[in-house]
Amino acid sequence: MRDRPRAYLAGPDVFLPNPEVIAEAKHKLCEKLGFTGISPSDNIIDVHGLPLRDAAFMISAANEQMIRDCDLVIANLTPFRGPSADVGTVFELGFARGLGLPAFAYTNVADSLIERIRALLGPCVRQRVSMPGTFEDEYGMAIEGFGLADNLMLEGALHASGAELIVCSTPEDRRFTDLSGFERCLQQAAVQLGRRR
Amino acid sequence: MRDRPRAYLAGPDVFLPNPEVIAEAKHKLCEKLGFTGISPSDNIIDVHGLPLRDAAFMISAANEQMIRDCDLVIANLTPFRGPSADVGTVFELGFARGLGLPAFAYTNVADSLIERIRALLGPCVRQRVSMPGTFEDEYGMAIEGFGLADNLMLEGALHASGAELIVCSTPEDRRFTDLSGFERCLQQAAVQLGRRR
Repeated sequence: MRDRPRAYLAGPDVFLPNPEVIAEAKHKLCEKLGFTGISPSDNIIDVHGLPLRDAAFMISAANEQMIRDCDLVIANLTPFRGPSADVGTVFELGFARGLGLPAFAYTNVADSLIERIRALLGPCVRQRVSMPGTFEDEYGMAIEGFGLADNLMLEGALHASGAELIVCSTPEDRRFTDLSGFERCLQQAAVQLGRRR
Repeated sequence: MRDRPRAYLAGPDVFLPNPEVIAEAKHKLCEKLGFTGISPSDNIIDVHGLPLRDAAFMISAANEQMIRDCDLVIANLTPFRGPSADVGTVFELGFARGLGLPAFAYTNVADSLIERIRALLGPCVRQRVSMPGTFEDEYGMAIEGFGLADNLMLEGALHASGAELIVCSTPEDRRFTDLSGFERCLQQAAVQLGRRR
């Protein structure tokens, strides 16, 4: 472990109008807590003139390499365009976990997955006849009823790596910019990695 | 590599009313193509009487272990409760990729990500003033415009591991059960892993 561990900052933040602004704010918090923050938007690669698919694959490969060069990951799992977290972020969390990196995460929406799916799908969500107490959607497909914030693989990965999801109740207009949950992740990481050093 | 490589079969199939039925159908196709199929639903663990969170974490840890014990992953990336793939599946794809397993995937929805997001969000999707040709949602957050089926990290991972996403146009009532894309993944895997053996 480096003296100042490198934290990969996964999240849908990269889709904000000015991703470098939130990246800079995150990097400052990282510094304050003894980490070096690495954001996908730090990745300046020249895709000019490339076919779109090739450009996409080049960005993907560069992001994977950035994660390989980091010591931990901090993921923003705030629900994004649906009841669950951004799939790009989730991929990166899984990738980091597969590499054995300690994983930390926060979400700025406090409702549980089942509450959000009920809000999204409405009356088509019904009790499962075969399994009282569990629910299913319009396709008859089960809805996880563990009371977690998202699919169990996400919080399971955090738990297995020694952390807990930080859940914040953030006003909608700051959903993708509020960093209090992020800062609490850094505090968790400082304690956990401090113990390991 | 084992003589009959073990393929972890990630997908929202596990949420179907009878996940063991589709798992068995997938396992038969695996056998036919020279693989041993391993599904999350094969994982019989006793969570009886456990608090819900502990049960969830036990399932997650068992799934991670199953993936560690496999030689490749085949993911069902069909959009699930939103414009993107199931996040549990995406986590597992990332995890497998982090472990260095060859990755294959299919989707039973042929529209691109941008088409699905436009269908979902409607008129709030608008051109980005600062970046002509790119789009943004109601939060001003960018929508990937690479023409891919989902977030670039997903297809990027497949591409980097030597495969291509299999895209099928499947009627809605068979969206989560049609296995023609899955079978094509197995064919891809047989060629790729055959070359490696």
